[in-house]
Amino acid sequence: MEEGQGIKSLLETLNDIPDHIPTIADYKRADIENCGAAYARRVFDRFGFDAVTLYHYMGDEAIEAFQQPQWADRGIFVLCRTSNRGSARFQHMPTVNPSGKIVPQYLEVARVVVDELDRLGNIGLVMGATFPEELSLVRQQHPRTILLIPGVGTQGGSLPDAVKAARDGEGRGFFISVSRSIIYALTDDKSRLESESYRAFTKAARDAAKRYRDQINEALGLSPVAV
Amino acid sequence: MEEGQGIKSLLETLNDIPDHIPTIADYKRADIENCGAAYARRVFDRFGFDAVTLYHYMGDEAIEAFQQPQWADRGIFVLCRTSNRGSARFQHMPTVNPSGKIVPQYLEVARVVVDELDRLGNIGLVMGATFPEELSLVRQQHPRTILLIPGVGTQGGSLPDAVKAARDGEGRGFFISVSRSIIYALTDDKSRLESESYRAFTKAARDAAKRYRDQINEALGLSPVAV
Repeated sequence: MEEGQGIKSLLETLNDIPDHIPTIADYKRADIENCGAAYARRVFDRFGFDAVTLYHYMGDEAIEAFQQPQWADRGIFVLCRTSNRGSARFQHMPTVNPSGKIVPQYLEVARVVVDELDRLGNIGLVMGATFPEELSLVRQQHPRTILLIPGVGTQGGSLPDAVKAARDGEGRGFFISVSRSIIYALTDDKSRLESESYRAFTKAARDAAKRYRDQINEALGLSPVAV
Repeated sequence: MEEGQGIKSLLETLNDIPDHIPTIADYKRADIENCGAAYARRVFDRFGFDAVTLYHYMGDEAIEAFQQPQWADRGIFVLCRTSNRGSARFQHMPTVNPSGKIVPQYLEVARVVVDELDRLGNIGLVMGATFPEELSLVRQQHPRTILLIPGVGTQGGSLPDAVKAARDGEGRGFFISVSRSIIYALTDDKSRLESESYRAFTKAARDAAKRYRDQINEALGLSPVAV
């Protein structure tokens, strides 16, 4: 099937990423069986992503579509506490947990996803860096779950606070996701972007990515990396 | 921008639909501002859909992206109680409403969407036909909200029960969505589809659509329509 311009650019970008670097599609999908199966084939087989983000709300089938045996080596991140300012309207809805305690809804979403839906041991949670105390609470309740953390950079979350809240007992167990602050490190002015050289663009993006990496390592108390 | 084969087929199909027939994209999206704005432009301006389905979970910005003044004549349907068998896992989570009563989560989602987020008066709810009692409950609590109802046909929901539960005081206020039972009315065997004539395919789809229309009118106690 012939792909459009956008998908071609995506495939070219994926093709340029070395195999040892995991790729996560911020897919934010979830649908009934037949549609979910098509979405899963597309993102895992056609595009070859290592992981996806999904919504929980439709329940079992929406997740199961991505949990097939042939994709047991892929990862799923379910949106739990998102980084945007209006996210509390639903994510903080008072919800009764199995102990009869009233908790904000995102904590029950986290519990059900981790305890009831993670059949293959490959489901993590999306937790915004903009709410480090809630990030810390989810880490305490789910010490071994991998967390995908957007909200650093353009959205204003503190990277050191997020790292400290998200790290597991071994200083691991999380991904910090930074998009716009790296892609637009040179400029987000489209007219200027087009006049700038490819070299200046890639250097600015690379330098930004290295700065974030160094900040993560510093927050973890690790020595700086040379490369 | 050059579109792929799938999008071209979608645009051709939309182009063939007469203007007086509303088109609803089962988009099931929701994202932060910049991504949501791109999704909204694509579905409303590029494709020209009259309405979309969206997820509620990310909250305000995810809906606001589609609520801009230039799209005040479009519709938004937020997923509330979906038709799939595993949907109760989250949609029935015990949730505390503002009166302190514990209700299944989908009722609180419905309340917040209708009472707090519907700034332009163009938001409806997706309610599966497979749960007619819950459909009826949402109709009672939201007498003027438009309901989009999947789950009839392949998914096994009863059309008369859904119509009786969903109708407002004037016998209106809902859309019954039937996809696979119309598209595959002739056959869902792909090899057979290719050997069948275009005429046989369209006749079977048209006959199926008319049968559903007649069943809807019958459930509403209306006289049969001639065309």
